[in-house]
Amino acid sequence: MAPVESKKRYRLLVEYDGTNFSGWQRQLDRPSVQQSIEDAIQEAFQEKVVVEGAGRTDSGVHALGQVAHFDLSKNLAEMRIQDGLNHFLKRQGASILKVQQVPIEFHARFSAKSRSYRYLIINRRSPLAIQSNRAHHIIQTLDITKMQKAAAYFIGTHDFTSFRDSNCQAESPVRTLDLFHLNSIGDLVCAEVKSKSFLHHQVRIMIGTLCLVGVGRLAPEQIPEILEEKDRSYAGPTAPAYGLYLTSVEY
Amino acid sequence: MAPVESKKRYRLLVEYDGTNFSGWQRQLDRPSVQQSIEDAIQEAFQEKVVVEGAGRTDSGVHALGQVAHFDLSKNLAEMRIQDGLNHFLKRQGASILKVQQVPIEFHARFSAKSRSYRYLIINRRSPLAIQSNRAHHIIQTLDITKMQKAAAYFIGTHDFTSFRDSNCQAESPVRTLDLFHLNSIGDLVCAEVKSKSFLHHQVRIMIGTLCLVGVGRLAPEQIPEILEEKDRSYAGPTAPAYGLYLTSVEY
Repeated sequence: MAPVESKKRYRLLVEYDGTNFSGWQRQLDRPSVQQSIEDAIQEAFQEKVVVEGAGRTDSGVHALGQVAHFDLSKNLAEMRIQDGLNHFLKRQGASILKVQQVPIEFHARFSAKSRSYRYLIINRRSPLAIQSNRAHHIIQTLDITKMQKAAAYFIGTHDFTSFRDSNCQAESPVRTLDLFHLNSIGDLVCAEVKSKSFLHHQVRIMIGTLCLVGVGRLAPEQIPEILEEKDRSYAGPTAPAYGLYLTSVEY
Repeated sequence: MAPVESKKRYRLLVEYDGTNFSGWQRQLDRPSVQQSIEDAIQEAFQEKVVVEGAGRTDSGVHALGQVAHFDLSKNLAEMRIQDGLNHFLKRQGASILKVQQVPIEFHARFSAKSRSYRYLIINRRSPLAIQSNRAHHIIQTLDITKMQKAAAYFIGTHDFTSFRDSNCQAESPVRTLDLFHLNSIGDLVCAEVKSKSFLHHQVRIMIGTLCLVGVGRLAPEQIPEILEEKDRSYAGPTAPAYGLYLTSVEY
């Protein structure tokens, strides 16, 4: 009797240009990163699989280091999988940076210890020609020192009800931010955040609120008050998706 | 008798995404940066002008700091010109970063003391998702130290016949390179070059040749030999336009 064929689990490191996709998650009639990778696997290796991602990035959000996994009956070299998928993903705006065979217990989403995101703002008068769809453009001069002060209030464990989308499905609004760095060089403002997980639109609402601080419409000291209110309407607008990058997932 | 109306000359600092244009120079039936700016001036200020650029970048080549000038009969505030042009350039992939009124003797092209270009290469196995059309993708591992050695041979005054396009119109093939820096960080390779002026495709042919050095198909010491040959066929291929950026023009 032949031994039962055991599936192999593969972990993917994925880069994508969010402009080309209606987000990570599969949707009926719009292009998603998940669907593109699943289609590429089927075309390259004739297996119909489900690809699980670590973070369900929204439409327009980019990834430099999304992590995903899937199972394959075939036993293939990691490099062969990488090149095979990239062949079929070509010109779709997604690229497989790395493939690793992992224990069957590994789960891209549930095994993740934390996610890191970056948000880019270009602070200048003139429109963006090179970086349009890659960074948020703000014309009014931002006070970076005040934004840094405000950002520090987000670090730690808080009820982030004021900073989540009204459609957020998460059971608890409590999250713990491990890191919130904000720095500028020239007209580029770069924010880096890290947490076990984020609420829906949390990073973009935090950034939108920090921008109000930056232009002087809110004081840094109002951040703890807004957290306290537990009401979305007290926070700033949701900053646009195209400034946001999922940079890495830590396990 | 009214005094003769004197024209005002304005200097523009221009950023553009080369992907959207068939180069700087006006062409009959394809979009050019020059034409776009001339059209914007006419739409914004009802004056038909010729815009002169410092460097005639090729189709696909980007600019972070192209300089141009034009004359206007109207006497307008610099900021008003900047905002007016940007309004009409919006979504075309060009942006006016600065407008300055300058003496009528200033000429974007003829007054320029030097031009600086940057060339970006991403050296990795997987295709580019975020940086496609923004950097040249090379899969074979590049030896940066060898490329740096080779690049140093270009600095100074040389007959660059081997490194100019066969269609190059310049009278003399002799150019003086003030600077040729080449560095890498992670998988990004960045070259910076500066010269009073460049021959047609000179930067891209030098980069294409350095890439042959990087992958071991040429030795650094062969660069002076190729210069000596004064024959285009001895140099490497012309590196793609989309890796090249006109970063600044010095006066």
